[in-house]
Amino acid sequence: MDRARLTRLLKDFKQGRIDAAGVIERLRSLPYEDLGFASVDHHRAIRQGFPEVIFCEGKTPAQTVAIARGLLKSGVPLLATRATPEVARALATLDRRAVYHELARTVVVRTGRPRPRGHVLIVSAGTADLPVAEEARVTAETMGSRVAVLYDVGVAGLHRLLGRHDRLLKARVLVVVAGMDGVLPSVVGGLVERPVIAVPTSRGYGASFGGLAALLTMLNSCAAGVGVVNIDNGFGAGCLAHKINVLGSE
Amino acid sequence: MDRARLTRLLKDFKQGRIDAAGVIERLRSLPYEDLGFASVDHHRAIRQGFPEVIFCEGKTPAQTVAIARGLLKSGVPLLATRATPEVARALATLDRRAVYHELARTVVVRTGRPRPRGHVLIVSAGTADLPVAEEARVTAETMGSRVAVLYDVGVAGLHRLLGRHDRLLKARVLVVVAGMDGVLPSVVGGLVERPVIAVPTSRGYGASFGGLAALLTMLNSCAAGVGVVNIDNGFGAGCLAHKINVLGSE
Amino acid sequence: MDRARLTRLLKDFKQGRIDAAGVIERLRSLPYEDLGFASVDHHRAIRQGFPEVIFCEGKTPAQTVAIARGLLKSGVPLLATRATPEVARALATLDRRAVYHELARTVVVRTGRPRPRGHVLIVSAGTADLPVAEEARVTAETMGSRVAVLYDVGVAGLHRLLGRHDRLLKARVLVVVAGMDGVLPSVVGGLVERPVIAVPTSRGYGASFGGLAALLTMLNSCAAGVGVVNIDNGFGAGCLAHKINVLGSE
Amino acid sequence: MDRARLTRLLKDFKQGRIDAAGVIERLRSLPYEDLGFASVDHHRAIRQGFPEVIFCEGKTPAQTVAIARGLLKSGVPLLATRATPEVARALATLDRRAVYHELARTVVVRTGRPRPRGHVLIVSAGTADLPVAEEARVTAETMGSRVAVLYDVGVAGLHRLLGRHDRLLKARVLVVVAGMDGVLPSVVGGLVERPVIAVPTSRGYGASFGGLAALLTMLNSCAAGVGVVNIDNGFGAGCLAHKINVLGSE
Amino acid sequence: MDRARLTRLLKDFKQGRIDAAGVIERLRSLPYEDLGFASVDHHRAIRQGFPEVIFCEGKTPAQTVAIARGLLKSGVPLLATRATPEVARALATLDRRAVYHELARTVVVRTGRPRPRGHVLIVSAGTADLPVAEEARVTAETMGSRVAVLYDVGVAGLHRLLGRHDRLLKARVLVVVAGMDGVLPSVVGGLVERPVIAVPTSRGYGASFGGLAALLTMLNSCAAGVGVVNIDNGFGAGCLAHKINVLGSE
Amino acid sequence: MDRARLTRLLKDFKQGRIDAAGVIERLRSLPYEDLGFASVDHHRAIRQGFPEVIFCEGKTPAQTVAIARGLLKSGVPLLATRATPEVARALATLDRRAVYHELARTVVVRTGRPRPRGHVLIVSAGTADLPVAEEARVTAETMGSRVAVLYDVGVAGLHRLLGRHDRLLKARVLVVVAGMDGVLPSVVGGLVERPVIAVPTSRGYGASFGGLAALLTMLNSCAAGVGVVNIDNGFGAGCLAHKINVLGSE
Amino acid sequence: MDRARLTRLLKDFKQGRIDAAGVIERLRSLPYEDLGFASVDHHRAIRQGFPEVIFCEGKTPAQTVAIARGLLKSGVPLLATRATPEVARALATLDRRAVYHELARTVVVRTGRPRPRGHVLIVSAGTADLPVAEEARVTAETMGSRVAVLYDVGVAGLHRLLGRHDRLLKARVLVVVAGMDGVLPSVVGGLVERPVIAVPTSRGYGASFGGLAALLTMLNSCAAGVGVVNIDNGFGAGCLAHKINVLGSE
Amino acid sequence: MDRARLTRLLKDFKQGRIDAAGVIERLRSLPYEDLGFASVDHHRAIRQGFPEVIFCEGKTPAQTVAIARGLLKSGVPLLATRATPEVARALATLDRRAVYHELARTVVVRTGRPRPRGHVLIVSAGTADLPVAEEARVTAETMGSRVAVLYDVGVAGLHRLLGRHDRLLKARVLVVVAGMDGVLPSVVGGLVERPVIAVPTSRGYGASFGGLAALLTMLNSCAAGVGVVNIDNGFGAGCLAHKINVLGSE
Repeated sequence: MDRARLTRLLKDFKQGRIDAAGVIERLRSLPYEDLGFASVDHHRAIRQGFPEVIFCEGKTPAQTVAIARGLLKSGVPLLATRATPEVARALATLDRRAVYHELARTVVVRTGRPRPRGHVLIVSAGTADLPVAEEARVTAETMGSRVAVLYDVGVAGLHRLLGRHDRLLKARVLVVVAGMDGVLPSVVGGLVERPVIAVPTSRGYGASFGGLAALLTMLNSCAAGVGVVNIDNGFGAGCLAHKINVLGSE
Repeated sequence: MDRARLTRLLKDFKQGRIDAAGVIERLRSLPYEDLGFASVDHHRAIRQGFPEVIFCEGKTPAQTVAIARGLLKSGVPLLATRATPEVARALATLDRRAVYHELARTVVVRTGRPRPRGHVLIVSAGTADLPVAEEARVTAETMGSRVAVLYDVGVAGLHRLLGRHDRLLKARVLVVVAGMDGVLPSVVGGLVERPVIAVPTSRGYGASFGGLAALLTMLNSCAAGVGVVNIDNGFGAGCLAHKINVLGSE
Repeated sequence: MDRARLTRLLKDFKQGRIDAAGVIERLRSLPYEDLGFASVDHHRAIRQGFPEVIFCEGKTPAQTVAIARGLLKSGVPLLATRATPEVARALATLDRRAVYHELARTVVVRTGRPRPRGHVLIVSAGTADLPVAEEARVTAETMGSRVAVLYDVGVAGLHRLLGRHDRLLKARVLVVVAGMDGVLPSVVGGLVERPVIAVPTSRGYGASFGGLAALLTMLNSCAAGVGVVNIDNGFGAGCLAHKINVLGSE
Repeated sequence: MDRARLTRLLKDFKQGRIDAAGVIERLRSLPYEDLGFASVDHHRAIRQGFPEVIFCEGKTPAQTVAIARGLLKSGVPLLATRATPEVARALATLDRRAVYHELARTVVVRTGRPRPRGHVLIVSAGTADLPVAEEARVTAETMGSRVAVLYDVGVAGLHRLLGRHDRLLKARVLVVVAGMDGVLPSVVGGLVERPVIAVPTSRGYGASFGGLAALLTMLNSCAAGVGVVNIDNGFGAGCLAHKINVLGSE
Repeated sequence: MDRARLTRLLKDFKQGRIDAAGVIERLRSLPYEDLGFASVDHHRAIRQGFPEVIFCEGKTPAQTVAIARGLLKSGVPLLATRATPEVARALATLDRRAVYHELARTVVVRTGRPRPRGHVLIVSAGTADLPVAEEARVTAETMGSRVAVLYDVGVAGLHRLLGRHDRLLKARVLVVVAGMDGVLPSVVGGLVERPVIAVPTSRGYGASFGGLAALLTMLNSCAAGVGVVNIDNGFGAGCLAHKINVLGSE
Repeated sequence: MDRARLTRLLKDFKQGRIDAAGVIERLRSLPYEDLGFASVDHHRAIRQGFPEVIFCEGKTPAQTVAIARGLLKSGVPLLATRATPEVARALATLDRRAVYHELARTVVVRTGRPRPRGHVLIVSAGTADLPVAEEARVTAETMGSRVAVLYDVGVAGLHRLLGRHDRLLKARVLVVVAGMDGVLPSVVGGLVERPVIAVPTSRGYGASFGGLAALLTMLNSCAAGVGVVNIDNGFGAGCLAHKINVLGSE
Repeated sequence: MDRARLTRLLKDFKQGRIDAAGVIERLRSLPYEDLGFASVDHHRAIRQGFPEVIFCEGKTPAQTVAIARGLLKSGVPLLATRATPEVARALATLDRRAVYHELARTVVVRTGRPRPRGHVLIVSAGTADLPVAEEARVTAETMGSRVAVLYDVGVAGLHRLLGRHDRLLKARVLVVVAGMDGVLPSVVGGLVERPVIAVPTSRGYGASFGGLAALLTMLNSCAAGVGVVNIDNGFGAGCLAHKINVLGSE
Repeated sequence: MDRARLTRLLKDFKQGRIDAAGVIERLRSLPYEDLGFASVDHHRAIRQGFPEVIFCEGKTPAQTVAIARGLLKSGVPLLATRATPEVARALATLDRRAVYHELARTVVVRTGRPRPRGHVLIVSAGTADLPVAEEARVTAETMGSRVAVLYDVGVAGLHRLLGRHDRLLKARVLVVVAGMDGVLPSVVGGLVERPVIAVPTSRGYGASFGGLAALLTMLNSCAAGVGVVNIDNGFGAGCLAHKINVLGSE
């Protein structure tokens, strides 16, 4: 029930075609979502610059393209994660502004200039963690945050991390990506005062159990103020980092 | 090596009692922490109002009291979590300002008036989740955040939650505490745009496996922008919420 | 916002004290639950005979009594599960009609005569499964179903089960409770055409892992048409059985 | 021992060719299944419209075709689940009425007109859950139930679900399919009074552990009256839903 | 339906009070167990010397005594496992022949002289494994096997085991009990040609996970011909060993 | 040190070329295996008809052929399990008597006529369990046991199993193979008095967790006298069954 | 078969009372352990200063005392781990030199002066890890190593660790003890070149799963050259550290 | 900040261009790693003969080649593990001294003659464990240790191991590699006094759970003095063995 129909209902009431009890009855069964949908949707657009993100895994290219077409038609920016090259090509056909970040497995169509915002720092341990770190980076950037990166600073060579202590301190929020033993967020969390988002990756073998070891390490982190997202969930980390970063700019 | 000793070293160098190579050698083996400790410590005090939190579990009352005595001597506020009544009594003897939050199992000594800050909302599902929710509340408050609570709004009675939608929207950051199926953060995360910190609790039985079920639910949350902390870790959630909340006040 | 306030709003609109846009704005932020609560609540009472069940575990006796007092005041029947003798005594003080089913760890206050309804059969394997089986029985009975039981018919003595095949066939829905290897629901499910609700129990030792073995057995049951509830969740099984049983009486 | 041989035995007895003790001896060693098989089989046909379902996974196309040929010969309907396109083609050669539901990976041959029956509602969260939801739909329909669907109503956009509250209330039994965090059944279970069958799917990544997260969520659901089936078991859910739905039509 | 009723039915048929179709109908619903029960029960007594073993865990002393009284009345021997001293005292009151094996937590009443049978060897690794080893010993002995033991021959002192190689070779079947790393059955299985029954115990700490480590070791044993029972299941091992041992005496 | 060298040593001693202390010293450092190897090897050949079984998984065809060539040279029978068709072809080139059991993935070269022995019964639940059941069958037969099979008697159609009760009773030892819920061994174990070897298979999906569910079911079996082997370990079950069967023939 | 009996056998052979074949036959069945036992035992005493350590858990005080009495009689030092105060008192009665290390839960009787050896460093993270760290310390010291400790240097305050970098570098082998996230060994392993033995502790709560999280962290450590022992296994770490330390002194 | 810049700073101070406070301020923000990096790096080269090992898994051939080129340029030896043949070919193009150990999946470029060092013994159980054993061998050798191997000595044929007892005793440190039940390290650990490094492999099937069974066996080993590395981590074991071996040569 949109505004027009609601106005009509009130007009009918004023003109006596329906009484108060009738109006209440109609309102009672009012489809919540019709009222709420636009509003929520509106909020979404305001706060993040785009209303929906396409998670491509488990969708056919055709399904992905159909959803993307609908989103692009309404003029909102597009963010498609876990996109294979095949999906990227399909989306490129749809809109030639589409940019494929191959390492991040992400397709982006930006429809406006992101407002300069605060500063998210993505820290990662190893080369094999890069796809997840890059997914976080592209996500936060597409949503409107400025992002810096600090890659290949694993704990095995602790000096590499300690030497960039100043860069750690400058960020408003940090996303720390690590596989294997997943100790990097604990160490970074002990060096900074800002919120740290820890992202375990499935990198590793044997008793890493597909990222479980890193996940448990991060959940048990002795450093206070660390929030954890799902294994390999670069998108979620980037999104949460952006939401926190935005707070600092209000 | 504190400032005084460093100044003396430089003086010795200027007066020729030690040459450049000797100074470099001394600096090279300079205990990092002596230099760094005060600085980090200072940072800690500035940002959170107290330099260290005592996790009482696994410590004897005597050990806890000894640590607390040291902290109180230096004039900083005190936060002791997982405190049994016995520990609380011991700390009360130490400092009569000590307040024991029994449900939160937390002892607090506040040495100053917290500056009014932003607004953290603690949301919880069931009566049995209250100790964890309260630990989060006391933690964030002691660190200097204003905190509101919204308890007993489990998904089984969804209307109770939807009816307080406005309260959800007003908070700058939300801590959502739930045991059993742990679905509350997913639902709340779908209703708000702000960062959500999810806290699984060990409440439940059978296939809840001591909170594992709730933990996995939260890590897999379809709502973007949810960060998860360890099972029953009300302290960590309160601390992270405060850190995020502070960003909005800078 | 209840009916009175809504009527007043419409009156204000009719009399021109507020325009259509104002009404829409007010309705937009209309607390959903105030409208919905009574209705949902009403539904609850109609369909199950009582609006809320108290799960006593993790609540203090005082908390339990407080909730029970509220429920009894509104004249609805009371069902309190996982009640210790101590809680039972406290509830008995509150209302002398309170009956404590010790084996089922359940307190019941029935405020009316349950309408005769269909027939739920509770089947269980061993003596140690009885508390769970009894919780299911008391729950379904209190909600208004007729219940029959068939206890101690484990698969180790298959003839005991096969000899009561006729009793299995007469039930409209079956709750099958088993610990250890949890095979009973698979066997029963192969003998009847009716819906079977399988309840694993934590009975067992070693590789039963607190009921996990039985749970997995039941989830993988080769017999089609078996729904599983949580380990030891007699209440959930009784409630679901009642809901299904009710369908046959409509 | 079929009816003919049994009649002959009784005739022999009446005519004195065998005495009572001899008859009893023969009956004692009576192959149970020969007696029971037809009866059970007969029951099966009556209650579900077909005596056996072929689970194709782990069978060669040749094995599947052989079993299907036997079933079709006896004039019963055919339901083959987890059928690859290759198997579907083989079955199509066998009987040209065979319909392949590609998304549901199911082949159906219906030999009669299903009697109009009650109403099962299949609810699912995401695009990637559709194969499981469709398997449930085809199963319940083939067994004789009317089925409605409500797809893509995940909790991340709660308004989509709340806006169809009326459709949820109309169903006699609901099958709720969800992967990732698996929270949808808890939310739906809090909105309806009817039996809810929860189906976790293996959709997800990382800490979803192949559907384990969703499974645990559902088993721990705070909503009473939820029965759970195995991960990805659309067939089992459809079958159980049909069995429950049938009760309402008796 | 016992013999008498069956005879009556046949008589009615012969005298024309019921026709063949009526008899078939009655036979069709013939309670299987009435026919089968005695026979199976009889088999039990013949093959093992006693019809039922009481697993005391999860039963009250009163329940245990009631079951024991019934068994003793029928003159069969009694085996009650996992018996606490309290239960043992209660059973001793019931029958003064009752012997309590404290280490094995088992009460035995033997009503006859066991026939001399083959030779079971119980091998165990550590002092803490003795209760399980002893449960196996008492079980096999009570059932009628001769039993020898070889205790405290853990792999850490391999020479102790190798030095008794001849004793290993003399047994007809071996029960090997081990906790912690559970390697003993693999080593013994490599030294003998006879069937080996491996019993993991819950002895250990940390990553023994309550016996899971030992269980997995045994299931993966590189020695062929090793069968495994549940963690701490001395009874099951003793029973299986006896069944195998009996074969060699037939 | 073989017999020849030992004889020479003793001769040297007798002739005074070495004294007693020297002999003892030589014996002390005597390589245990040289003495033991032949003996154990000899035992192996006597008891099982062949000294070693080749587990092909994880070996290259070349490695497998090399081991097989060595075994065949010494005139012993050959049993190669988990053999791919490629390996089977390679072994066929080596010895034209080699028979490939495709379903059992096993290559056999029998060098003598197996002595008629007792009777092992292989029972299995579903079509997809056949490879494991057949591996058990080929193994026990190759080792010298007579084997009967009873396939496709899953618990979902219990009558099929009960109807063959007599066949179950005739076997000296039973191997029961089942995937999914793994309940078949529990049911069979309740029907027979003989030793039962339970083999879980990895057949299944979702919460079967690669056979873990069936494994746990079997370990927790309420039927006493069930020994369990590793998931899919048809070889181990066949080998253990043969060892038990042999006892009955001694 | 000891030297005396062997000499007699050889004498019999020389004097013709037994022939070569007879001697070989006797030697063939020679109890391995009788030959090997003394030698191995002797080795033990030489290399570690005591032949056996008593793990008290799961033993009664009486059993522990009996074993200790035997060891003390032979004049070797005594090490009893996991000793309760009750056990400690019992051992003190046995030998008044017995020292009870309460925090380490260990009783030691040293019978000689340990030779000065290399230097083991025990590093630990938190107060609650001390019992395990102390068990390692007492073990290595009792076995004869010099031991230094560096406690309370968790990663949350990284400067405390970095400030003692020189102390880390001086040790010949390091034992690093940590619970919760277990990151300390990874960090230490990145700072030193020496062997690091990592000991996870069961300290923690929630997703630490009794030390599993710390264990997995350590097994996946990105720092090369880290060996891990069981959760809480201070004894094993101390013993391995001593064995490595000894190498450096040879 | 290198030595040159530091000298310049001190010179400025001496000449009054900067005061003590200024120097302290500069030192305070001194990049830790610039000071520490060279030193640590230098240590690395001295102690192991090469500063970094390339773990190829999860890196593209191009990334691997780029890292290798950098390392070779600085004249250090190269060790690349988990190298596919494709990567090996690429590295061979880079430097023709590159040797590919196919079984060990490792590429080595040695730039100098390794100093003769102590003796590491690699022991392994089965043919399928060889890749891991070989990775350990190549790693220890490349780092500068002498290495001996003892392959195919699984516990199923215990005599093979016992017969080489002398070879076990000669090694300074042992690496024991085993999959399946993983019992070999326990047995070896009971035979030697030296440090044992246990390496579980992922070899196996069913309840080996990808090496988890072997890992748990080793962590629970009853033999004291066993350190465990990650599943399949031949590199880590070889590296740790080398570090321990080096101690014995100092």
